[in-house]
Parts: sequence; structure tokens; C-alpha cells
Amino acid sequence: MKKVVVIGEILVEIMADTTGDGFRDVQPLTGPFPSGAPAIFADQAARLGQPVSIVSAVGDDDFGQINLDRLRSDGVDISGVFIDKARPTGSAFVRYRKNGDRDFVFNIRHSAAGHLHETAAVKALIGNADHLHIMGSSLSSPEFVEANLKAAESVRGRGGTISFDPNLRREILAASDIAGAMSRMVALTDLYLPSGDELTLLTDADTADAAIAELLGRGVRAIVHKRGAAGASYHDRHGSVSADAFAVTETDPTGAGDCFGATFTVLWLRGLPASDALRFAAASGALAVTKRGPMEGTATLDKLQDFIRTTEGPIA
Amino acid sequence: MKKVVVIGEILVEIMADTTGDGFRDVQPLTGPFPSGAPAIFADQAARLGQPVSIVSAVGDDDFGQINLDRLRSDGVDISGVFIDKARPTGSAFVRYRKNGDRDFVFNIRHSAAGHLHETAAVKALIGNADHLHIMGSSLSSPEFVEANLKAAESVRGRGGTISFDPNLRREILAASDIAGAMSRMVALTDLYLPSGDELTLLTDADTADAAIAELLGRGVRAIVHKRGAAGASYHDRHGSVSADAFAVTETDPTGAGDCFGATFTVLWLRGLPASDALRFAAASGALAVTKRGPMEGTATLDKLQDFIRTTEGPIA
Repeated sequence: MKKVVVIGEILVEIMADTTGDGFRDVQPLTGPFPSGAPAIFADQAARLGQPVSIVSAVGDDDFGQINLDRLRSDGVDISGVFIDKARPTGSAFVRYRKNGDRDFVFNIRHSAAGHLHETAAVKALIGNADHLHIMGSSLSSPEFVEANLKAAESVRGRGGTISFDPNLRREILAASDIAGAMSRMVALTDLYLPSGDELTLLTDADTADAAIAELLGRGVRAIVHKRGAAGASYHDRHGSVSADAFAVTETDPTGAGDCFGATFTVLWLRGLPASDALRFAAASGALAVTKRGPMEGTATLDKLQDFIRTTEGPIA
Repeated sequence: MKKVVVIGEILVEIMADTTGDGFRDVQPLTGPFPSGAPAIFADQAARLGQPVSIVSAVGDDDFGQINLDRLRSDGVDISGVFIDKARPTGSAFVRYRKNGDRDFVFNIRHSAAGHLHETAAVKALIGNADHLHIMGSSLSSPEFVEANLKAAESVRGRGGTISFDPNLRREILAASDIAGAMSRMVALTDLYLPSGDELTLLTDADTADAAIAELLGRGVRAIVHKRGAAGASYHDRHGSVSADAFAVTETDPTGAGDCFGATFTVLWLRGLPASDALRFAAASGALAVTKRGPMEGTATLDKLQDFIRTTEGPIA
């Protein structure tokens, strides 16, 4: 089985119990939930039985511990998680607005998760990895961009593969000078996993078709375009295949894209046909949105199979 | 009316709804509550009609805004509060254990509140202050110790006065080299406001009487020894006077000592007899413990008078 590594933030999420605008009033909350897009990805990959590690840092506090406990118990290798004695574990407060948008209060950049520590354990994990997954949300500083690029070059140099989920906000791209680094990252990517209009984000294209052609032309081997409740499509040089989303009652979409991406990536690494991998990934995303909390909906392969079997099936 | 300034942390507090051990499980929470010992002190002083400002920093987020809104609306001068665009507002998660102890997860040192900004507004506030209140909780770094010492020397040099609440943990004192700075701080103090066994903390004494004698000998003019539900005592060169606590149902003791200290300090600055100031301060602390949230129990002079009038009176 191929060894997967992901570099990025481990956080706790605190969720508002009511819908509304932000956090300027005292209100009922629930948390801490284990979170962080790379941590959710790693947790979902581990629950599928894939050897996976996360390179990250948490504070020496209960918020770090709740994450370490969860990741360890679900099978993630946490030897690359640095315990920062000085900084607190990163956090994200999230409140849904009535229209489905979200307000956040973040503590990431100046938290434990905002600083990399290239320990011996980290070097070993990256040196032994067969696959690196890059999370756009983790590319918030030049330090993290460089670490991911360096790891990607190392893994690729040994014949390994790279997947990249460009969950970057356009403001970040526009505000900083990371466009060049992003271009280098795309050039190293085997499996590209954009959501919605992220498909054109790192391209010169205006349309989906043009973006897909451009990305395949730049060396990306496979593209999975995630479109939430509207399903997902897979594209490579040989053609395209699509899968509908499963019809479920949405409780909390946070983390669903990360579960989808992890499940697709793991099954792609195992050589499953794209249509099958898409179907399992859709089930993974569907289970995630039915659970409150970003990492609460991760599932084993058995559970995904049961879900697919017992659900009416993809909507037509 | 004398102008009061306080330098230190503005935070939000997130309270666990249940008693128990810490934050290693998903649980019901309530918040964000405006908080931070210096902020509570300033808010209570402002509600008594005293001109008061706070020198602090918050993030450019909802947690900063909820504090600024509250402090401004209660009459605190917030011109000395820096809005830090990079760092988040400080936070404290608090959960009461069944035995009354508390577990915390802090984000202070690396938050906006952990960094000082000597703006023109700050210089003006300190340059015009008649009184500086020093919060021990704010002396967590050499930068804050130096800023408070410098401000104290400036205020004292112009004939102003200093109050000091040494709410420092013994571990902090032991672990760091701030003992010398604390000794300088005591030497600049007019009104000293220790709680419980903090009375002997910055002295060579083992007993309360010896500590009081030593502090008065070192130039402290007045000592108010806060003892929570066991009442409080005032000591100066002329003698001592005590006041019982009011008998109230305790909902949340956090912030009660800061309200007590603010009310005593304000009335002491106005020249009230110590026995009267102690009685109002006891009422202020009592009201604070009846309200959930650290800053929710601050009260006007009218409200304190009503409380004293309608309560059965101090327990005998």
C-alpha cells in the first residue's frame, strides 16, 4: 500500500448552534471538534486503511490532544506532529448564515499550526512517502508553500505522485505573490482536485473545457472536478466520466470536500477505475455532510459500501 | 475626576456549559463573552462614571468588535486599543470542574493582546493619566512588565497614584526572572489589592500581619486584602477595617475580584472612607458572581446602592 503524507493545519472547530451573522453576540456554541482540511483528509484516508501521516503542529493543550487522540485512534501516523509548548492549537469558529454562507473567526497563522518544524520524524515521513497530498488551505504562507514544493519535488523525484486540492481563496492568490509558486505546484501535480470555479483558478482559461485542456497539457494526469450536490467529473487524456451526488439531508457541509478528495485519492492510488473511485468518493462526501462537525463523517470502506448499497442510489 | 488608565489584555471568554475536566470532548459552550481582567476593571470603573481608558490590542475580527462595542457603550475610552490586522483577538476557554477549580485553554501570548503598540493615542493617555491600575495577569512578558513600570514611573512622577492587583500565579513568578521587576512595582504602589494568599506573594513574610507591616514599611499607602466569600480588609498606617461579603448565590466567580478592585479603587480615588469603599466593593463583587460571564456583572453606583439597600445586608 502506498504511503501518503499531507502537510498542513490541525485545528479545532467551534460551531455556532444557531444560524446568523458572526460572533458579535454571546450565543450557544458546540466544540471543540477535531478539524483542519489536511487533518480531515488524513483521517478519511486512514479510515480506508491507507498508511497516511500528517506533518503539522498543535499546542500543548486540550485542543491539540483531542485532535491527536482522534487521528491516532483512526490510524493516522502522528509522528510528524510537533507539540508546540509556546503556541496554542489553531482554531476556527464557524457560524452558518441563513443563506448558507459562513462567518469565521480564525486563529491559524499565529497558532501552533502556523509554524513548521522539520524534525527527524518529518524528514523520515517525507523521505519514505509514495504520495503527497497538497491542500490549498495550507498554502497561507511562503514557508508552507516552500515546504510543500520541496516535499513534492522529493516525492516526485523518487517516482511518487502528487495530488493537489486548490482550496485557495481568490483573495489570497490576488493579495500575495504566490501565483508563481502555484504554477510550479500545478506542474508537479498528478491528480488535481478543484471544487466549483476553482477549476479555472490556476489557469488562463475562462471555461471548464479550456481549463481541463490546459491542465492536461501542462502535465496533470487526472482532474476531478468536485461540484458538491451537483456531482463530480473525472477527466484525463482518454476522456471524462461523471458521477451524481447522493441525495442526503445536509447537516454540515464543512469537511465534505476533504472526505471526497481523500477517498478518491486513496482509491485512485489503489488503481480503481475512475468511475468506481468517483462513486465511493461521492458516498464519502455524502456521509460527511450528514454529520455535524468537520471530521465526524469520515468512514471506513465497509461503511461506504453499506451506504451505497442501502441508499436509493445516485439521483438520475 | 481623576483619569484612570490600565494596560493589559482584552479577551473573549468561551464558557463550558457543563462542569467537568477540560476540553478533550465535544461539548456545549457559550460565548464569546467580553473578558480580560484589565478590561473588566476598566468596564466597572467606567460604569461608576470614572474617566478610564485601556491600553490594549484586539484582532480585526468579531471577538475584538464585541469587546470594543461593550467597552465603548459602557464609557471606557478605547482610543488606546490597537486593531491588529494580523493577529486574532485573545481568547480563554474556561470550564469549571466539579470541585470549583477551573481548566483553561488560553490564546493570549501570541494573540493581539500579547503585543504592545505605543501609538500616539497611548502616549497621550498615559501622559494625561492621574492614576494607573496594574493587573498582575497582564505581566506575562518582559514587554508588559516594562510598559507598566514605565507608565507607573510617569504617572507617579507627575504626582499621580498607582494601584496594583498582583493576580500573578506563583509558577509564573518562580519560572521567570520578574521578581526584581515585581519588587520595583510594589515600591511604586499606593494601593495594593492582593487576593487570598497573594498577600504574602511579593514579600518576605510568612503571615498576613507581617506582610502588611512589610508592605506599609516599603511605602505602600493602603492594602485591600480580598478574601472572596470571606470578606475583605483594609489596612493602612492608621489601622485596619474589614467588611463581610454579601451572601449571594454564586453563578460564576470569574471577574468578581476585578469588579471589587475597580469599585474600591474608584471610590478610594474619590476620597471615600475605606469602610464605605469596602462596602461598595463587596457589593460589586457580589453582583459579579451572580452573573454568568466575566464582564456581565459590572454595575453603576445606583445599582450598587440598590443592591446594598435591598439585600439583607452583610452577613454578621
